[in-house]
Amino acid sequence: MEILITNDDGIYAEGIYALAVALKKAGNVTVVAPDTQRSAVGHAITITDPLRVTEARRNGKFFGYAASGTPADCVKLGIKAIMKKRPDLVVSGINLGGNQAYNILYSGTVSGATEGALLGIPSMAVSLDTFKNPDFGPSAEFAVKVARQMARRPLPKGTLLNVNLPNLPAKKIKGVRVTNQSRTCFNDWFEKRTDPHGNTYYWMTGDYEPKDADKASDLNALRAGYVSVTPIQFDLTDYKFLSELEGWDLH
Amino acid sequence: MEILITNDDGIYAEGIYALAVALKKAGNVTVVAPDTQRSAVGHAITITDPLRVTEARRNGKFFGYAASGTPADCVKLGIKAIMKKRPDLVVSGINLGGNQAYNILYSGTVSGATEGALLGIPSMAVSLDTFKNPDFGPSAEFAVKVARQMARRPLPKGTLLNVNLPNLPAKKIKGVRVTNQSRTCFNDWFEKRTDPHGNTYYWMTGDYEPKDADKASDLNALRAGYVSVTPIQFDLTDYKFLSELEGWDLH
Repeated sequence: MEILITNDDGIYAEGIYALAVALKKAGNVTVVAPDTQRSAVGHAITITDPLRVTEARRNGKFFGYAASGTPADCVKLGIKAIMKKRPDLVVSGINLGGNQAYNILYSGTVSGATEGALLGIPSMAVSLDTFKNPDFGPSAEFAVKVARQMARRPLPKGTLLNVNLPNLPAKKIKGVRVTNQSRTCFNDWFEKRTDPHGNTYYWMTGDYEPKDADKASDLNALRAGYVSVTPIQFDLTDYKFLSELEGWDLH
Repeated sequence: MEILITNDDGIYAEGIYALAVALKKAGNVTVVAPDTQRSAVGHAITITDPLRVTEARRNGKFFGYAASGTPADCVKLGIKAIMKKRPDLVVSGINLGGNQAYNILYSGTVSGATEGALLGIPSMAVSLDTFKNPDFGPSAEFAVKVARQMARRPLPKGTLLNVNLPNLPAKKIKGVRVTNQSRTCFNDWFEKRTDPHGNTYYWMTGDYEPKDADKASDLNALRAGYVSVTPIQFDLTDYKFLSELEGWDLH
């Protein structure tokens, strides 16, 4: 199995290293990842600047290709310019920080896997739900397990898997839940400040402590100590609303 | 009605000017838009840099607020830091270039409206399906019509409208179709080049001429000379696949 790996924390992050080492058990690994951190880039692509690609070494060995672009750029580059064979699997991660609920719209990690799915390749995003003291081991091992399943079982066209793990030792993880996306999002606001030259600027900040009554959601699986696996897709049409919208006075 | 306007072509683009002038017929307009072009940024937000906001003038008069961020940043700033009253409507556009099919995932224009919807405000994106010789007049007038409908009719929570117009004179537009998102996307590739210093770089390029057998799609409405109005939402869960995924060996 040919596996393309990317992330949004950058090619020198710990999470992508743990992922690449573990996935070598499942196939041939090619890493194409951003040369610097590209978090919260959403599904951005780079069309107005050229993309640079350099070889990146870690621990004294060739590790992969560092690109001056977003995760979606990296997946396109990997498939269309770098890999000699089309990958059988695209894996994006392991992200430092969970990617669940409506927040996945902002996620570079998920967008890397989305790009794989748009290009017709089985794809998954893997994220670890913590910003502190990450233990990537259980996430990397779980990614291998899912990769082996994906090699044998088809996903619907256009569907990918969004995988999140709680930051717990393997023994303390309660199990795996197949979930839906929580219908909650960040609560954010701006801190207004004045720079030394008297000019105003704003910092975006916020928290993510929503109540979510939906027991089947990714958010509540993580809170309860479970791994969350959500199948997601990108036909955004609100089909239920189509017929009502037909009744609006738009003509 | 309080209306917040943004775009991804930047505050000095022609499309946002035509939109703002027209929407004054429907309410009080506040413009908060990127200080430069931010196309293909997807649903990016700016969390690692501070955001600057300056007042922008056009034709000798105050026009709106230019922010050093993405369309999603601008909508957050407008609602949470700039406007005194919460807007009743968020409108993003008028984009130079259509936003249809899977390509809307890359769209800064759509992401501006998406951010409005995530914050609970009726929102729409408006795009003109051309890159050359745009006539924004019919799009601006249609946006006013939709805005007036949105003031009177509820959208489902989390749903927004993605509006696209063909670049035709008003008289030549055949009508309005309520559509679903086409399940097609860009066909892109990379041009590999060598710079004067002997280093390789890549330009992303591509075309968008897909076949689409779906007669109800946004793409085919535009091709046939109709305005396309698609209701979109952001629960990405592939509900149909949940039960099959439960049968995978993930435990």
